[in-house]
Amino acid sequence: MTFEQMWAELEPIGRGPDGGYRRFAWTGPELECRAWFLAQAAARGLDVEPDANGNLFAWWGGPGPDAVVTGSHLDSVPGGGAYDGPLGVVSALAAIDLLRERGVRPARPIGVAAFAEEEGARFGVACLGSRLLTGAIDPDRARGLRDAEGRRFGEVVAGHGLDPLALGRDDALLGRIGCFVELHVEQGRALDAPVGVAASIVPHGRWRFDFTGRGDHAGTTLLEDRCDPALPFAHTVLAARAAAERHGGVATVGRAEIVPGGVNAIPSAVTAWLDARGPAEPVVRSIVEDVGRAADRAATEHGVAVEWAEESYSAAVEFDAGLRDRLARLLDAQVLPTAAGHDAGVLAARVPTAMLFVRNPTGISHSPAEHADLADCLAGVAALAAVLEELAGT
Amino acid sequence: MTFEQMWAELEPIGRGPDGGYRRFAWTGPELECRAWFLAQAAARGLDVEPDANGNLFAWWGGPGPDAVVTGSHLDSVPGGGAYDGPLGVVSALAAIDLLRERGVRPARPIGVAAFAEEEGARFGVACLGSRLLTGAIDPDRARGLRDAEGRRFGEVVAGHGLDPLALGRDDALLGRIGCFVELHVEQGRALDAPVGVAASIVPHGRWRFDFTGRGDHAGTTLLEDRCDPALPFAHTVLAARAAAERHGGVATVGRAEIVPGGVNAIPSAVTAWLDARGPAEPVVRSIVEDVGRAADRAATEHGVAVEWAEESYSAAVEFDAGLRDRLARLLDAQVLPTAAGHDAGVLAARVPTAMLFVRNPTGISHSPAEHADLADCLAGVAALAAVLEELAGT
Repeated sequence: MTFEQMWAELEPIGRGPDGGYRRFAWTGPELECRAWFLAQAAARGLDVEPDANGNLFAWWGGPGPDAVVTGSHLDSVPGGGAYDGPLGVVSALAAIDLLRERGVRPARPIGVAAFAEEEGARFGVACLGSRLLTGAIDPDRARGLRDAEGRRFGEVVAGHGLDPLALGRDDALLGRIGCFVELHVEQGRALDAPVGVAASIVPHGRWRFDFTGRGDHAGTTLLEDRCDPALPFAHTVLAARAAAERHGGVATVGRAEIVPGGVNAIPSAVTAWLDARGPAEPVVRSIVEDVGRAADRAATEHGVAVEWAEESYSAAVEFDAGLRDRLARLLDAQVLPTAAGHDAGVLAARVPTAMLFVRNPTGISHSPAEHADLADCLAGVAALAAVLEELAGT
Repeated sequence: MTFEQMWAELEPIGRGPDGGYRRFAWTGPELECRAWFLAQAAARGLDVEPDANGNLFAWWGGPGPDAVVTGSHLDSVPGGGAYDGPLGVVSALAAIDLLRERGVRPARPIGVAAFAEEEGARFGVACLGSRLLTGAIDPDRARGLRDAEGRRFGEVVAGHGLDPLALGRDDALLGRIGCFVELHVEQGRALDAPVGVAASIVPHGRWRFDFTGRGDHAGTTLLEDRCDPALPFAHTVLAARAAAERHGGVATVGRAEIVPGGVNAIPSAVTAWLDARGPAEPVVRSIVEDVGRAADRAATEHGVAVEWAEESYSAAVEFDAGLRDRLARLLDAQVLPTAAGHDAGVLAARVPTAMLFVRNPTGISHSPAEHADLADCLAGVAALAAVLEELAGT
């Protein structure tokens, strides 16, 4: 099955009427993507080993030791694009096909990974599968994470055959991975060629703000009697933008819940999430401190209580310099940093890790408008095949 | 069945874990309330006539002419209180019981109404049932109103036995109503006695703001490349408060939808609703104009498109002066204005109309904390019985 055929099979799964995807971890569309992955692995005679953390690994040549692992994720943000995640998985399978067509017999085993809950769209923590695998999150905390319906991560994965008590760092599996290379659609406009190599990931994180006011009637409650949490929330959205400008980073409030949400009712509570990133940790910390101070001040002014806390933080990642330079030389490719988080950034703490980026003509991502040209995708497959052949040896 | 018994039966229907009610028109809990109303009417030998617009009328003595009609509504805002609406319906039934116990035989027929979708929590237009009945909304517009799931009002009511083509002004029914008296829990703190009489309803309305930006990645999109609709939305929330202060009215943004709602995605769109009220129409219009201008300006600044439109507007209502003075004298009651909309305000355009308010010790409404003491509720029943006896004659 060609790259185009695989792409055509995956494309309709979880796509909404506006073209945006909703493939949340362990919901129908994402389970369908997982089943598709298992079928593709089986069709290629690759043995699939689900790990204890919900990640899938398909092996060409037996699982390690010193394996070359590639892959990405199948889940999406709400209203996301088709490429973010699946491109890396489909390209990995297509690269294996290419190597086999060329009669390559790799000396080191090759693995294809599909990591779980990379976007954190369901349980709030990005790269949850790779964080658990590498020990970057306490399994107790992970078990207790809740989705929008209040279901806990531990319960949900138990319903899909995982043992919640077995979640967490897996040194045996990590010990079999010699290196990890993730191919991903580029998410900015910095890449001028079909394929590039990642230098680094900027530090980034998520913070949650809970504003608690007093619900009341929108008509009969005098302004001076109100404790309206929408007001400090709005101040906080604007403060995030101002702080990002001031400190030279980016900050976004992309999700908020206004409770109870009646047009003719003053809200009783607002919960909002801040995503903040910057070229270095002090930038990110300064942004978050400024936003937190602004939230505190505005809440006090409006008689509203506010609590804010870090949900996740990812320090700056410099990918393995030797691997990076080797791939850039091999592919004669541009080396560029990214402001997007990836499983590769989490894996990098434990194994030599690199990333390949496939050009995104508009730079738009996390949107139905996310796109990569087919020619660039196929160039990505060829590049990944060359990388696997180089790293796995023959 | 006593007032307390009726109250105890209604109380659990549609109540959430935090005590807030969610009785949206033609959803499970509201249908359960309707069924309860039908059973109560049947138990009293009152003939129920559903009208063509989803409102229910239970008749003591045959439907008109020159009937004295009382009642209120059974639906709630999201997270609403127990009293707003149901108190008027339960009190009407209890008042009839009281009159019968006293052997009163009214000369004019007495009707008990339960109006549909008073809060507009499902289809966005408050007092939809009474607006349709009186011709205050075009039935074509009403048929096309959509709920949060995108279902049209016309389809939904067709599923509950109404003919969507028969929706609209019902002069035959209106002609049988001699006067209308709605009992309602007071929604401010202005009432110092168990029962008061309404003077007027201030002008009020709802406006919808649609901000359309460009969804993108929260990490990789530079600030200067963003078209983030959350920013002009936040400006608009703050502008609403400032405009209300400036012009001496109130303004609230109690509901907003951020699309697609990913923590790590710049939103593609935000829809927000403004509720604005004031002592006179120019105040309300000035608030809305200021907010609209602020939304336009902030949207332009951030490369976002905005459209805003009136969803409903209710002009100031002065209740029938003769009726108001007659009830105030009969009950020796305080006469007070309200900033809350009511079906009585809509009916007032077509029939002599009055309202009784029952004291609310904290003034809190549209909230689980909404409350009226039992003694005040029973005083309300007694007052309503006295009013019905006075108006219906013997």
